[in-house]
Amino acid sequence: MADARAVPPTPEQIGQVVAAVRATHPLVHCITNGVVANVTANVLLAAGAAPAMVEAPEEAGVLAGVAGALLINLGTLTTPQVDGMRVAIAAANTAGVPWVLDPVAIGALPLRTAVAGEFARLGPAVIRGNASEIAALVGGAGGRGVDSTTTPDEITDVVADVAREFGTVVAASGPVDLITDGTRTVRVASGHPLLTRVTGVGCSLGALIGACLAVGDDAVLAAAAATAWMCVAGEQAAEKATGPGSFAVALLDGLDGLDPAAVGARGGVR
Amino acid sequence: MADARAVPPTPEQIGQVVAAVRATHPLVHCITNGVVANVTANVLLAAGAAPAMVEAPEEAGVLAGVAGALLINLGTLTTPQVDGMRVAIAAANTAGVPWVLDPVAIGALPLRTAVAGEFARLGPAVIRGNASEIAALVGGAGGRGVDSTTTPDEITDVVADVAREFGTVVAASGPVDLITDGTRTVRVASGHPLLTRVTGVGCSLGALIGACLAVGDDAVLAAAAATAWMCVAGEQAAEKATGPGSFAVALLDGLDGLDPAAVGARGGVR
Amino acid sequence: MADARAVPPTPEQIGQVVAAVRATHPLVHCITNGVVANVTANVLLAAGAAPAMVEAPEEAGVLAGVAGALLINLGTLTTPQVDGMRVAIAAANTAGVPWVLDPVAIGALPLRTAVAGEFARLGPAVIRGNASEIAALVGGAGGRGVDSTTTPDEITDVVADVAREFGTVVAASGPVDLITDGTRTVRVASGHPLLTRVTGVGCSLGALIGACLAVGDDAVLAAAAATAWMCVAGEQAAEKATGPGSFAVALLDGLDGLDPAAVGARGGVR
Repeated sequence: MADARAVPPTPEQIGQVVAAVRATHPLVHCITNGVVANVTANVLLAAGAAPAMVEAPEEAGVLAGVAGALLINLGTLTTPQVDGMRVAIAAANTAGVPWVLDPVAIGALPLRTAVAGEFARLGPAVIRGNASEIAALVGGAGGRGVDSTTTPDEITDVVADVAREFGTVVAASGPVDLITDGTRTVRVASGHPLLTRVTGVGCSLGALIGACLAVGDDAVLAAAAATAWMCVAGEQAAEKATGPGSFAVALLDGLDGLDPAAVGARGGVR
Repeated sequence: MADARAVPPTPEQIGQVVAAVRATHPLVHCITNGVVANVTANVLLAAGAAPAMVEAPEEAGVLAGVAGALLINLGTLTTPQVDGMRVAIAAANTAGVPWVLDPVAIGALPLRTAVAGEFARLGPAVIRGNASEIAALVGGAGGRGVDSTTTPDEITDVVADVAREFGTVVAASGPVDLITDGTRTVRVASGHPLLTRVTGVGCSLGALIGACLAVGDDAVLAAAAATAWMCVAGEQAAEKATGPGSFAVALLDGLDGLDPAAVGARGGVR
Repeated sequence: MADARAVPPTPEQIGQVVAAVRATHPLVHCITNGVVANVTANVLLAAGAAPAMVEAPEEAGVLAGVAGALLINLGTLTTPQVDGMRVAIAAANTAGVPWVLDPVAIGALPLRTAVAGEFARLGPAVIRGNASEIAALVGGAGGRGVDSTTTPDEITDVVADVAREFGTVVAASGPVDLITDGTRTVRVASGHPLLTRVTGVGCSLGALIGACLAVGDDAVLAAAAATAWMCVAGEQAAEKATGPGSFAVALLDGLDGLDPAAVGARGGVR
């Protein structure tokens, strides 16, 4: 029997996470940005999970406390949203609900950068972002020369630093995704360039990581499984698509229809 | 000639509502949740209606007073939205514009539950929700054992109670939809499970009920026609779809293309 | 060699704008309405541009100052949004970043009508709207008999008045689009009725005009190229579509896949 914390996770373990999400329909509470809320909900539904978007401070804690996982995405952050996020994070932590932080576009933008710094210290199970966003969590946007074209593999040390600094798992997206808790490091080498031509794929991946966190307590495995699921669905969708519009449609069909074993076998997790 | 208030509505009456929406392009003012605003607008456009989303308190009353119908959906309610909703409802009532209340996810979530209780007493033409949401309007979420898997047919008495309590028509969604004013009761036995795998179908049905209310004064008929329209379009879309992504696309095509007579004939209204 | 300010722009010039957007991926900062934010981002991505939606007053100026262009769309305006818009416009003007104003549904709705009047005097490179919205900028919604079925060609004098009054280029949408700076006037006679059956096409056109402004300093050419691009993609999508759902998908594919020369040749710019 495979080690429950095998590095890298085995294809069987990846497939089991996919199957568990479909079997148990975990409730994923998302406080996310307005551009991607619709596609995020559809990605979760296609994956077999149950999305719920509630951000009023009067309600966010009630839902977060009973959810399978919580997503905090800073993509269109405004000051009034921060209160609801704080309440939801506190309730999730009290109830032991795992949560994902997606620090969209932090670095140069001051409100979200400050909020991300605050939230990163509150115990997210996973922080998901591109290389630039991850580096910015440790002040790296300027001095380390990270820009949006930097790949995770060019800054593996920084990614591991962030994981250790905040005691979390970091999932850094790029041509090859890098997932690490600062000690165990996994790469996911699958996907397709069209995944970057549809808005909300990265943000939805944060939600899908939440769904996978809800069905097991190994955050490295959860992030790897969600990433492989999205990437393999993207590869399959690209074969059918004639452009980014038809790709987005086929991506949802693929998240729904993919065989769990295929996600494990084709996911490129290593 | 059929009785204008036949129970159940005849297939001809159902088809006439569909044709009337397409012929007159009623303006449906929606104050709805951010997750589903896009798909709601597209459903209305596909049906031949004209969507308008305006929620600023300074403007919501102006629009509601000249609209064909108003939708109030509590899906991502925050306190600042409530003022615009109150203004819109008051203007609709003054002008005699029918309106639909969709009390999304009320019961455990306190802000929306209180607001739904307030709004339900303001004279909505139709209240649309699933069985759990309808039961929660009369305090039923806990004591009556209603959860999200309860079907409308399991709580027909509660649904009728809600209709009488608030002097409205209730449209309770489920595998078989139940529509009642507390006296006349209609069931709609059509649809497809994929309708639950795309975000916003239920919320969009609330808007489509609004479009049907705008073309006639029988709210039971309007709710039945909108439900049948969505369900038959869903059945047709499921035949073409390879998953929830392609289903959502085909659903919009079907709302646009379906023959009114087919909606009546295949709608399963009884 | 063609005059850089040829009226009408040549097919070659139109194609060059399309190619330049794809080659340089301009960042288009959008403060837009919640109904269409998703489709707007997807239109920009399909065109090869990079969307960013940031509206917090603390951040909107930082982004607008480094963007290739800024879009201000009043579709779901609320008072809290106005501050972020003002900050973004000021930063764009300081940095010399061109911006587009889309005064959605002004005329009868008071908040947005007042805000549009304020913003129109702040130096937008392009104001985009339908005939009714353009006329309302000079008080025309009532007295001049403009309603939403009025075409730009029925009020060419009003459109030119607006351009001169505010020292801007006006792009008035309709069956034939009219683009003018008050002196040079261009018409775009292409497109398809299905473009009006999907929410957000007009709003997304405003963003696409922004992307075209970012790659050249002739605002008439930019507006004509963006309009032709959307219209030719719409014509091509209509050939493949079986309704508004499949049309929306094919429209994104077309924005991505169209040959620049085809946009110039088929765009109907004259």
